[in-house]
Amino acid sequence: MADLRKRVTNNKATDVDTETENEGFNQDSDANLDLDSEDDKSLGNKVDLSNTIPSGTDKAPELLDSTLSYLPPRWRNWVIRGIFTWVMIFGFALMIYAGPLALMLVVLAVQVKCFAEIINIGYAVYKIHGLPWFRSLSWYFLITSNYFFYGESLVDYFGVVDNRTEFLRALVKYHRFISFSLYIGGFVWFVLSLVKRYYMKQFSLFAWTHVALLIVVTQSYLIIRNIFQGLIWFIVPVSMIVCNDVMAYMFGFFFGRTPLIKLSPKKTWEGFIGGGFATVIFGLLISYFLCQYPFFVCPIEFNEELGRMTLDCEPSPLFRPQEYTVPASLAPVVRMVTGKNTVMIIPFLLHSLSMSVFSSVIGPFGGFFASGFKRAFKIKDFGDIIPGHGGIMDRFDCQYLMATFVNVYISSFIRMDSPQKLLQQIYSLKPELQLELFTALRDSLTTRGILQLPAP
Amino acid sequence: MADLRKRVTNNKATDVDTETENEGFNQDSDANLDLDSEDDKSLGNKVDLSNTIPSGTDKAPELLDSTLSYLPPRWRNWVIRGIFTWVMIFGFALMIYAGPLALMLVVLAVQVKCFAEIINIGYAVYKIHGLPWFRSLSWYFLITSNYFFYGESLVDYFGVVDNRTEFLRALVKYHRFISFSLYIGGFVWFVLSLVKRYYMKQFSLFAWTHVALLIVVTQSYLIIRNIFQGLIWFIVPVSMIVCNDVMAYMFGFFFGRTPLIKLSPKKTWEGFIGGGFATVIFGLLISYFLCQYPFFVCPIEFNEELGRMTLDCEPSPLFRPQEYTVPASLAPVVRMVTGKNTVMIIPFLLHSLSMSVFSSVIGPFGGFFASGFKRAFKIKDFGDIIPGHGGIMDRFDCQYLMATFVNVYISSFIRMDSPQKLLQQIYSLKPELQLELFTALRDSLTTRGILQLPAP
Repeated sequence: MADLRKRVTNNKATDVDTETENEGFNQDSDANLDLDSEDDKSLGNKVDLSNTIPSGTDKAPELLDSTLSYLPPRWRNWVIRGIFTWVMIFGFALMIYAGPLALMLVVLAVQVKCFAEIINIGYAVYKIHGLPWFRSLSWYFLITSNYFFYGESLVDYFGVVDNRTEFLRALVKYHRFISFSLYIGGFVWFVLSLVKRYYMKQFSLFAWTHVALLIVVTQSYLIIRNIFQGLIWFIVPVSMIVCNDVMAYMFGFFFGRTPLIKLSPKKTWEGFIGGGFATVIFGLLISYFLCQYPFFVCPIEFNEELGRMTLDCEPSPLFRPQEYTVPASLAPVVRMVTGKNTVMIIPFLLHSLSMSVFSSVIGPFGGFFASGFKRAFKIKDFGDIIPGHGGIMDRFDCQYLMATFVNVYISSFIRMDSPQKLLQQIYSLKPELQLELFTALRDSLTTRGILQLPAP
Repeated sequence: MADLRKRVTNNKATDVDTETENEGFNQDSDANLDLDSEDDKSLGNKVDLSNTIPSGTDKAPELLDSTLSYLPPRWRNWVIRGIFTWVMIFGFALMIYAGPLALMLVVLAVQVKCFAEIINIGYAVYKIHGLPWFRSLSWYFLITSNYFFYGESLVDYFGVVDNRTEFLRALVKYHRFISFSLYIGGFVWFVLSLVKRYYMKQFSLFAWTHVALLIVVTQSYLIIRNIFQGLIWFIVPVSMIVCNDVMAYMFGFFFGRTPLIKLSPKKTWEGFIGGGFATVIFGLLISYFLCQYPFFVCPIEFNEELGRMTLDCEPSPLFRPQEYTVPASLAPVVRMVTGKNTVMIIPFLLHSLSMSVFSSVIGPFGGFFASGFKRAFKIKDFGDIIPGHGGIMDRFDCQYLMATFVNVYISSFIRMDSPQKLLQQIYSLKPELQLELFTALRDSLTTRGILQLPAP
């Protein structure tokens, strides 16, 4: 949920700052030493970063810009925004077609870009680009935490490496220890890089980096874990957020009367409610469609024989119609329609309902949060990478919140420990413990009458 | 590792701030509305909180103070500090005697106090006590994250609740979902509490709260998990940090010549190295002593029959002397001493060695970090709860870093999945899946020759 409404009429900020630093991502403006800002108001309420952070809403490829030059600026922006919306939707479809591994890499790339955008705002706020180690330290922490989280996923899913090299086995076995040592390295480096006059700024940026990691890295880890459960757990929530975003705008545009929240004056109750209904319906339709294909519903598993990841399985009952008995109070109505006391429902559609309710009720708060943050630092967008849309972070603010919800939802309501995974853990025990476990299990199963032992 | 050296000569700050706010923990100074500080330099480099945060190094109970009034102030402080060091050591022993449950509660209490101290500094820095919801929000997040983490521990260790009430079972099963919902509640509350003029301060405090949670709550969760592995994993690291702290001071006092780091000018290489050696020796001695008693080395387990937690077991080989063959190069020397090519070593002593190296090489950086932080905000201590020592956080800065190390160390080098835990997971599967797993395990064990099936 981004501030679609606001940005349309939000023209280029007019107040020009006296400092014209340019803190672009690809540009290390070390020349701009700012080491004597002993008493600058760098975190007073008068911060204005509109010229420091590249907010690219109006920036467009030159070719496109000149082609559209006959349009008035406002409409030009509309067209550019529309074109790039379709470019993104098409790109999204292409990535899914390319399969889960490609998707993982895209999630990683998006995560890195989001991190860069948040960190660049931090640099601009604290005007710290003169201090030599800071850029390296932030990136070091990014790499360390990705090593930890991606490693955890991979170890979990491709844990059987007994037949690989000794080196790989050590990497897996001591994964946490290695990650922790890397982190401690960064921690010591930070302490050694402290310079007397800049303690406050250095500690603030240290905290800023950690909050960025918390938002970006941990949540993209959750996105990847969702993808492993089956592509449907990625596609449905992501497209719900997009749908809610677009439809809330549409309903607000045509029927909007009643303001919703002071924080985003352009948002209306009509948009909020209309968008919510549209999202529920859209969610049910896309879920029904995706449930038909194993490609979308099968968890990603590593096939030892083929030596690659596969997306093929007997789809779980979750994605196939199941017979539900309706409550007595509704029975007469249902019997009139179907002639029976039962209805056939795909269980996933009920889960889709929960997700669409979350994405349309709580999702917008992710957007409010991001727009509050942007207002706090008086910036228009997080970056300028997508013409007409701003930064990557502007498009992903709510996706992160949604991904966490889906992950928690799966672990609470869907995922059960699979026998395969438990077996792998058992096989990693010492042989005598395996035998001990086997005996205990046999006795328990016999006692409970699940297993009939052959007469001795 | 605290700045023992510095504080001794660090007398009461002399610069008196014009504002005399008193942001004590028990005192909600809402009277001190500061709503019009639109352009204050609240985060410029000139912050001085020496009068805002209660730094109680010189504060002592009145009775003690008057009894010692004949001493010069510097010595009075020494005596008070010494007395309360012993009070703390005695308290520590008492807590261990009281057993693991009492210890868990103490860890919780310490955590809450540390959080309060960090958050109070945040309030003072951003001068935000006028905004009504902030105090409640921080505490709400503290409660939510504790609910999540303590719940995760308890679910893990006392997971078998099939025989309890339906309500408890739901709490366990949906633990993550409930915790996430609580968190989302706080998130929405925060967004709704945003007030236009204070965006920047509100977002800063939101980040501050989350960093405090990251430091305090997640790490005390790790401490509790260490305690569950056996009291020895708690007592040894905690006392190593204390020992290193005291001994580095002693060595520095008597032999200190060469300055170690600019950040803490009173620390010397002599103290660092001497303290390190003392810690290694102390660590070996205390580890050897504790290894003799099941009370210290047994993991804490919930005894279904007794209905309470027990600390009794057949001690693991980790804590009993094992025969090690020495490398060929050392063999002649060893044979001269022991008459054999082997030595008897308690494996835990080797782990104790790793821990003491970490606590004396990396541990001090926790102290440097904390003292850098205190200098950044120009405060002397985190609080005033322990006479002669400052706040709780002043005594625990390195303990948190150490706890994480120990936790990672255990999970990488010590802990193996125990058959009991795996069995619990198996029993939570559906009966037909349990049977499937059983058959697969039987076949695998037979194939590998671990299990001999009776002739059919």
